[in-house]
Amino acid sequence: MEHSDLKLLGQRIRDRRKALGLTQEKLADLAKIDRSYIGGVERGERNITFSLLCQICTALECDVAALTFEIPEKQR
Amino acid sequence: MEHSDLKLLGQRIRDRRKALGLTQEKLADLAKIDRSYIGGVERGERNITFSLLCQICTALECDVAALTFEIPEKQR
Repeated sequence: MEHSDLKLLGQRIRDRRKALGLTQEKLADLAKIDRSYIGGVERGERNITFSLLCQICTALECDVAALTFEIPEKQR
Repeated sequence: MEHSDLKLLGQRIRDRRKALGLTQEKLADLAKIDRSYIGGVERGERNITFSLLCQICTALECDVAALTFEIPEKQR
């Protein structure tokens, strides 16, 4: 189910943000996105578009692949 | 500019589809998406959502990372 994929993506965005020592505010600012939206993305509540994911990855200084290995999770 | 990122993603989806010997119809069927929409995605004209990208990757038997290394392209 894609909700688990969105949750997993959100977790990886949060982990990467924290590894870079960024607050949600700072990430939102760098990615030119509203701060409250970043919170929703990290909780897996937002089915973000690919271009928005690219904006977030640019701010996190990584490519999309770095955050999406083994997503979607293989159907068990 | 994210348009180039969408074009690059679309190209990779097309390449993977062809490598698997799938028609756009068959990919659309497997991914449970409308055939005309797949055409737009492959041409980079659709800013697809992450869950839709996951559906396409499931149909293409790969993870999102396999199609998104070095996307977004580094700002030159």
